[in-house]
Amino acid sequence: MTQIYHQSPPVGQEISCVMKGIESSLLKNNSQLKKILLKALKECNFKILKLVSHNFTPHGFTIMALLSESHAAIHSYPEYSALYFSLYSCRGPKDAEKTFKIIKKKLNPKKIIFLKNDSVLLK
Amino acid sequence: MTQIYHQSPPVGQEISCVMKGIESSLLKNNSQLKKILLKALKECNFKILKLVSHNFTPHGFTIMALLSESHAAIHSYPEYSALYFSLYSCRGPKDAEKTFKIIKKKLNPKKIIFLKNDSVLLK
Repeated sequence: MTQIYHQSPPVGQEISCVMKGIESSLLKNNSQLKKILLKALKECNFKILKLVSHNFTPHGFTIMALLSESHAAIHSYPEYSALYFSLYSCRGPKDAEKTFKIIKKKLNPKKIIFLKNDSVLLK
Repeated sequence: MTQIYHQSPPVGQEISCVMKGIESSLLKNNSQLKKILLKALKECNFKILKLVSHNFTPHGFTIMALLSESHAAIHSYPEYSALYFSLYSCRGPKDAEKTFKIIKKKLNPKKIIFLKNDSVLLK
């Protein structure tokens, strides 16, 4: 008897970074930030299973997507003109690159500080 | 006139890691993994604003906590005896250390591979 079990690829990728110098009106536009994230995930064929977000007072926004392929998160810090972006995918190596590039293009930050951009070995 | 605005601390911390060699029955016990995460966050006075989780078939579990202080995430990969843990806090430097240590003690992994354990400069 053949038994087939689900098995994640042994290598994934995590990118996390702080993007700085994003235009203030964009950084305070929470619904626009949400749209940008969802569109980028869709373009890269990520499957969103659950989505949560929170608008902080007086500003600041968090959105997290629970994916079939792991997760994505954004936190905005308008007081520092900064946005934290994180994507962890267990779909394979280099898998988070395209999504990151799409989001970078839309947000057009002046500077990006990578906290992590590397492969994730699971096995 | 004095106007007081919310401002996050300019430095936070992100810890993300893969813990390997966790005891199989614990790694497949999704409700127990959830309890461990929530208890650790509570002990460290993180405020959970929203919580989402998903039980994968035939195994695998994701839980994400949207915090006042940013976010935490766990993904389990029983097929690799592995668990991914990530905590990003903008409450201050070294802020994620205690929570990480509590979770590590409860899961008792044989090996930990740090993907990221560093300060996050926002300003």
